[in-house]
Amino acid sequence: MQQSGISQPTLIIDALRVKANIHRMKAKAKKQQVVFRPHFKTHQSGIVGQWFRQAGVDRITVSSVNMAQYFADHGWKDILIAFPVNLMEIKNINRLAGRIKLYLLLEDASVAAQLDQILEHGVGVYIKLDTGAGRTGIALDDEGRVLELANQIKASKNLQLKGLLTHAGHFYHQPGGKRVINEKTQQISQRMKGLKARLGQDDLILSWGDTPSCSMLDELNGYDEWRPGNFVYYDVMQYHIGSCSLEDIAVAMACPVVAVHPEREEMVIYGGSVHFSSEFIAADEDFRLYGYLVNFTEKGWTEAVAGAWLARLSQEHGIVKLPKEICTHYKPGDLIGILPVHSCITVSAIRQQQDLDGNLIPKMVV
Amino acid sequence: MQQSGISQPTLIIDALRVKANIHRMKAKAKKQQVVFRPHFKTHQSGIVGQWFRQAGVDRITVSSVNMAQYFADHGWKDILIAFPVNLMEIKNINRLAGRIKLYLLLEDASVAAQLDQILEHGVGVYIKLDTGAGRTGIALDDEGRVLELANQIKASKNLQLKGLLTHAGHFYHQPGGKRVINEKTQQISQRMKGLKARLGQDDLILSWGDTPSCSMLDELNGYDEWRPGNFVYYDVMQYHIGSCSLEDIAVAMACPVVAVHPEREEMVIYGGSVHFSSEFIAADEDFRLYGYLVNFTEKGWTEAVAGAWLARLSQEHGIVKLPKEICTHYKPGDLIGILPVHSCITVSAIRQQQDLDGNLIPKMVV
Repeated sequence: MQQSGISQPTLIIDALRVKANIHRMKAKAKKQQVVFRPHFKTHQSGIVGQWFRQAGVDRITVSSVNMAQYFADHGWKDILIAFPVNLMEIKNINRLAGRIKLYLLLEDASVAAQLDQILEHGVGVYIKLDTGAGRTGIALDDEGRVLELANQIKASKNLQLKGLLTHAGHFYHQPGGKRVINEKTQQISQRMKGLKARLGQDDLILSWGDTPSCSMLDELNGYDEWRPGNFVYYDVMQYHIGSCSLEDIAVAMACPVVAVHPEREEMVIYGGSVHFSSEFIAADEDFRLYGYLVNFTEKGWTEAVAGAWLARLSQEHGIVKLPKEICTHYKPGDLIGILPVHSCITVSAIRQQQDLDGNLIPKMVV
Repeated sequence: MQQSGISQPTLIIDALRVKANIHRMKAKAKKQQVVFRPHFKTHQSGIVGQWFRQAGVDRITVSSVNMAQYFADHGWKDILIAFPVNLMEIKNINRLAGRIKLYLLLEDASVAAQLDQILEHGVGVYIKLDTGAGRTGIALDDEGRVLELANQIKASKNLQLKGLLTHAGHFYHQPGGKRVINEKTQQISQRMKGLKARLGQDDLILSWGDTPSCSMLDELNGYDEWRPGNFVYYDVMQYHIGSCSLEDIAVAMACPVVAVHPEREEMVIYGGSVHFSSEFIAADEDFRLYGYLVNFTEKGWTEAVAGAWLARLSQEHGIVKLPKEICTHYKPGDLIGILPVHSCITVSAIRQQQDLDGNLIPKMVV
């Protein structure tokens, strides 16, 4: 890894691993005969987007109007904003709808009615279903409301019903792991197919997409479209869920060591919550995991150092716990790597990114 | 509050509250006859810095070399970087030391030795003491190491020993509250005075500064310098610690409502961990508090809405819990306010800031 020029926390992107992750998921989607519409909120980068394009991807998902604008500026022409329509952003939505194929997400009849009135161009819409995550969407049980909204959309002048969409965010904390995720994925698919039949629209797309299920399950029958995002980089949380191996994780935060405290079996790094964000995995009240330690090598980084982890963050400081016998391996002025717990959020927080050769990897800045 | 023009999560700064917070802390420092060197990592804004200058402040603390550069560019000439020296940033440290009075933080003899060799200008240094926070610094017990480092600094060619510095970060989680914080503050002060006596340097500054103790205690005898930072905005965490009232909190995040779910007693806002960061207060495993709900008024915002709180965050979504009877008060297209749990981290995460009149408040962007 090209270390010269790094003096502050910098996210290092292993392009080969990224491309391998893209190709693996793309091939799986192809085998399952589903449309692959990856979520770009994880990388938020025009360059990483190009790697998807080179793999044959031409439709994408984003999580904000800003992000849709950024990727439209990078040549993407078919974009789904998978976030409930924010009516306050209508000016930018109209501008986008005039230049690309734009798809929006709806769950509320009053929003649909207002949107239809103020749109200047036709857009495709997906209805958001809540299939257990409890975040947004119409409950899958509430068939009446889905049918009502679908009929309202069909009767509108600017909205075209394109699909039913769900995100199984609860799979991130699913007891029972792969087996239960498999069962639930099939159950949800059956019920969404039932809804589609009742709506009587044969070309309606059933859109699915969380990284755990798209990574772990061999078969994802019944869906027409996949939208996983995190898989492009993966992270320690996905490793714990079982979605990836540690070797699939394609990003590591390079952080300068600023102090070593062998008496506490700790070192202090320049790298805090302004760089990583503050997400962690908690095993119990006294144990927080913010990331794993790796050492940089000529070509990349080592496997995670056994018994070491990023255990605390303040604004700019990180505290890494170390086995006593390796405390002497590190000293102030060294550069170490941290595999982050949640890559999407870390990418949003960090300002500096580069690949293993030291080439800057720019990303969206709002 | 000037709502027009806001269509995305935006941090609203109540300038009158900010100025009142500055004046209150400045007056208290004056009464205690301590040098007031406020920490600017909370606001990171040239404009808010001007409000400090108008209150008579001319010395400041920052948490990174970047932040020191930003404030030097805004006319500040006496800056302490309260973060262990990161040797990799020596080029920028040298540049800064050539143009302003620069103070650095040391705890490690090898770093001190290297720094002395590569500095091109003299700098003042503070020795960092760990007085219970367990993050950085030489343990207060380890007098031998403090004396040794002090002697090394005195014998150096470019380092001038300026003070002993500590940050009582553990006061953020101090059982016993104000009473125990008072006792510990006095105990630490006595021991730091003892160290100073042993060092035999009369002009050595004892530097102290966390917002809880500087806000709560009437007397902070024995210290020469205060460096609180968070008090400029305060936040829900400081309110829970007892450092401020909810009316002292000077920032609220304006967020568009995108969905209301009366059946779950929730609404969904555009405002997630990319805007707030991911810090929360946990009462128990099932209760997380990311902020309190307020409604905007013509002149600012209401007091916190009883029984409502920001309970979950994902990348762009926030879930606000609402008492059933007020769910009908909110609808998609509304703009609501959230008092954040940790203002420093939220300021770092958010990109858009303005005052109550709609004037942009720029801040550092790295």
